[in-house]
Amino acid sequence: MNDPGISSLDNQLIKQIRQWHDARLCREAGVCLVEGQRAITACLLAGWEAQHIFINAGLSYAPSWPADKIRRVSERVAAKISQAHTPSGYLANFRAPTPPPLEAIAGGLVLVGISDPGNLGTLIRCAAAFALKQVVLVGGADPFAHKVIQSTAGTVANIHLYRFEHEDELPMLRNSLPGSSSALAAPCCALVVRDGQHPATFARKPRWLFVGSEANGLSTKVLAGCQEQLTLPMPGQTESLNAAMAGAIACYALFAPPANR
Amino acid sequence: MNDPGISSLDNQLIKQIRQWHDARLCREAGVCLVEGQRAITACLLAGWEAQHIFINAGLSYAPSWPADKIRRVSERVAAKISQAHTPSGYLANFRAPTPPPLEAIAGGLVLVGISDPGNLGTLIRCAAAFALKQVVLVGGADPFAHKVIQSTAGTVANIHLYRFEHEDELPMLRNSLPGSSSALAAPCCALVVRDGQHPATFARKPRWLFVGSEANGLSTKVLAGCQEQLTLPMPGQTESLNAAMAGAIACYALFAPPANR
Repeated sequence: MNDPGISSLDNQLIKQIRQWHDARLCREAGVCLVEGQRAITACLLAGWEAQHIFINAGLSYAPSWPADKIRRVSERVAAKISQAHTPSGYLANFRAPTPPPLEAIAGGLVLVGISDPGNLGTLIRCAAAFALKQVVLVGGADPFAHKVIQSTAGTVANIHLYRFEHEDELPMLRNSLPGSSSALAAPCCALVVRDGQHPATFARKPRWLFVGSEANGLSTKVLAGCQEQLTLPMPGQTESLNAAMAGAIACYALFAPPANR
Repeated sequence: MNDPGISSLDNQLIKQIRQWHDARLCREAGVCLVEGQRAITACLLAGWEAQHIFINAGLSYAPSWPADKIRRVSERVAAKISQAHTPSGYLANFRAPTPPPLEAIAGGLVLVGISDPGNLGTLIRCAAAFALKQVVLVGGADPFAHKVIQSTAGTVANIHLYRFEHEDELPMLRNSLPGSSSALAAPCCALVVRDGQHPATFARKPRWLFVGSEANGLSTKVLAGCQEQLTLPMPGQTESLNAAMAGAIACYALFAPPANR
């Protein structure tokens, strides 16, 4: 505990971490920066391997953390490598594992154009909570951005993340996934504000649940590619819920286990 | 459209609006500042009366808006009265109506210590979406704060809002509401992370749904006062959802109309 650790901002490792504050560079390097004890623990528990864990000198850490990866840093360095308003004193860089090929049969959550980082992160967290293994992103916020990662509360390590620039590339819409033309492929289900089916009318099975942005919803092209449409019953006659809320409720409605399980 | 309107920051009305950027002063004055065309329209549709609607000179507005309340302002003034990062050019001050006495029989959403303004606003929006009429706040963020109001997307005008400083004051927990000791009073139901009942086991009827903060949950005192406990089934074994997501899903699970309606 008396090791003062890295105190220079010129340290190569520290400079590298600060460069990774640019989410695009993180993504290109396959590196994920995670801050805070709980989130780091969640990533480790999910099997992610930390390259380094930087801890403000004097702070303790869980015995389950890999001691050989710990790098003590001064308070000044801890503050500079953090992207949080109130730095926790804990920051890890993980190598984000390359996900396996998309599985047509398993389904998952497809998020189209979700540009708010907090909404994107909480939707990923929601997918993890309901045991979806695959989250597919089309455009929107960069999933490697600090606020996205932190909003997942470490659950980003529990799912496989796939990213496409444009909806035209989505293999489950083009039936271009291995197995996707077979009867086993999970159907595509669009969450829409009106005229879709009530959640209770859907049989409980794997699906690709498509959620669009609050501003634009889903495009007619995406809707045309979806075999199913889902609308949440909202008796309040108010404007629709925001994308994160509606997506969370739809995940629950389609994927939560029933009472008798 | 050629009226340049108010261009001086020394204008008394403008000075007053800027003072109301302090949420506490708003609350004490019973005034609610709402920004953006959609949110203002939602408040007007819900029956709220605007005292003034400030519009950036040159911007148009819906014909349904009360023309006698419109005050044109210069772009500089519009920017100064706004609390948004990107001012929309539309700001209205409404007199927030005094809500009627709490109805024991009707139930609603009880939010305890929700300190994140965005979470508080989206939970209010969620209550409105599922046609709950009463939202009761205990501590937490000030509901008159800009970010709370904007996160409700104008649905704050669709519900009756009640605020208590401390949970000991909650009348539905103390059976001190008129009618609350009768068999007709809505039961109190706590949303808890584990060991509560599955949502499907609850008969569909009015309830007081209690949602606590992500950090602290609900106190043992609140739990002791609740006749029911609800836990969302989350097969993913991840950390619990954040308060806004969990509260939104619980609202849906308890209050959304079933398919056959």
